[in-house]
Amino acid sequence: MALTNTRLVRIEWGDCDPAGIIFYPRYFEIFDNATAALFERALGMTKFHYLEAYAFAGFPLVDSRAKFLKPTRFGDDVTVVSSVDFGSSSFTVQHRILLHGELCAQCTEKRVWIIRDAAGRIKSQPVPAPVREKFG
Amino acid sequence: MALTNTRLVRIEWGDCDPAGIIFYPRYFEIFDNATAALFERALGMTKFHYLEAYAFAGFPLVDSRAKFLKPTRFGDDVTVVSSVDFGSSSFTVQHRILLHGELCAQCTEKRVWIIRDAAGRIKSQPVPAPVREKFG
Amino acid sequence: MALTNTRLVRIEWGDCDPAGIIFYPRYFEIFDNATAALFERALGMTKFHYLEAYAFAGFPLVDSRAKFLKPTRFGDDVTVVSSVDFGSSSFTVQHRILLHGELCAQCTEKRVWIIRDAAGRIKSQPVPAPVREKFG
Amino acid sequence: MALTNTRLVRIEWGDCDPAGIIFYPRYFEIFDNATAALFERALGMTKFHYLEAYAFAGFPLVDSRAKFLKPTRFGDDVTVVSSVDFGSSSFTVQHRILLHGELCAQCTEKRVWIIRDAAGRIKSQPVPAPVREKFG
Repeated sequence: MALTNTRLVRIEWGDCDPAGIIFYPRYFEIFDNATAALFERALGMTKFHYLEAYAFAGFPLVDSRAKFLKPTRFGDDVTVVSSVDFGSSSFTVQHRILLHGELCAQCTEKRVWIIRDAAGRIKSQPVPAPVREKFG
Repeated sequence: MALTNTRLVRIEWGDCDPAGIIFYPRYFEIFDNATAALFERALGMTKFHYLEAYAFAGFPLVDSRAKFLKPTRFGDDVTVVSSVDFGSSSFTVQHRILLHGELCAQCTEKRVWIIRDAAGRIKSQPVPAPVREKFG
Repeated sequence: MALTNTRLVRIEWGDCDPAGIIFYPRYFEIFDNATAALFERALGMTKFHYLEAYAFAGFPLVDSRAKFLKPTRFGDDVTVVSSVDFGSSSFTVQHRILLHGELCAQCTEKRVWIIRDAAGRIKSQPVPAPVREKFG
Repeated sequence: MALTNTRLVRIEWGDCDPAGIIFYPRYFEIFDNATAALFERALGMTKFHYLEAYAFAGFPLVDSRAKFLKPTRFGDDVTVVSSVDFGSSSFTVQHRILLHGELCAQCTEKRVWIIRDAAGRIKSQPVPAPVREKFG
């Protein structure tokens, strides 16, 4: 059974737009933070440290699919539930945002694990086995 | 032939992350701004004024699909090309981000046109014909 | 002795710039969130509810003075300590950001309490006594 | 007579909060972008290139003083006027934001020029003379 990470996130006044509801690009910040937190939970260290420990440059997004079902607003404490599936050349992170148990938004992120070559250019490679194993 | 809007956007230092490339949620701000600009171009007034003129509360996103093909970085002046297709209960906006003619990112947004009912609650309705007609 | 609010905030990857340290406008989001949280603590309800309960439109900033002493970076969990002083026509919020007990940034915000008049225009008024009293 | 840079910036829907006016941390993004643009104008290249050409790591803020006189809102095209004064160990950038010729916000930024030492740590040094001379 794969590792799942759950965290509580406050929707802030400054995350909301003149309609009084969340400005949707803020959800993608929440998703990105949640991906970093999922790896932090699995690897037992913050992103600052796991970038060093596993000698990589990040896991940028190549594809994203999101659905926004119910708007949230400032003062809402939403639950973000995240999990990952590792493929051969990329990996997929699923996020669900719930308020009072009701699904408000969800996102599927396809990401790649990148390293820097000798010339400093970024290139992707499979997620190393020692990382994948930490997700159980 | 439907209206297309093209605008130049500078990727800023603060849009980029420690990997030196754009932090992808910033693309969604660029897409949202581009949707507002597309309607501004078609309707001949800014969003502040068209929300009033057409008595609606906005066009929130219900679904988004994005692909990120090549990273951009601070100092890049990217071209954003946007167009719209009106459906019966929602509408779809397509955005493409190009640098030196090369496609860097693209997004398909499904949005709904919302109004406030007498109780102040938001509900969706079809995009009014006078608005759709402005897109030619 | 006046009420002080303390909260822990994670500096995220997306809060940092290509130099690998926090992009300073993010500190002002942290300060604004901390002001909202200070009032939430004193008034016993979120900003969404206290705007309604006390019939006001917000407390925009009129003046800000900030010092940035030591950079923070993604993965840092900083402590934000906030307190308020009420003046006759405005109020002042002090924020300090500490990491491992060391001061990293501080800010003094001068804010006004605003209401909407009959025409919907915003104007400032003194912070109501029932609000000030909640801060002890 | 020192170089001054003037640019037009659109306040966007997503820059504004539920009160319908600009969320003030967005002003600091505008100020930071304007500082980068001022140096771009003086040095004749973008920040990406002048960081390389002058071998430095950025010019982080150490102190900021801002006044917010009149709120702006989405759809406003504000004028940002920026200029710099070089001191011996730091430099000061002044920004003014105007709408229809009326001052809406202003900011004084104190910044330091930083380089990375052999160990990769950042330290400040005076702004190099070849840079200062470009500001006339």
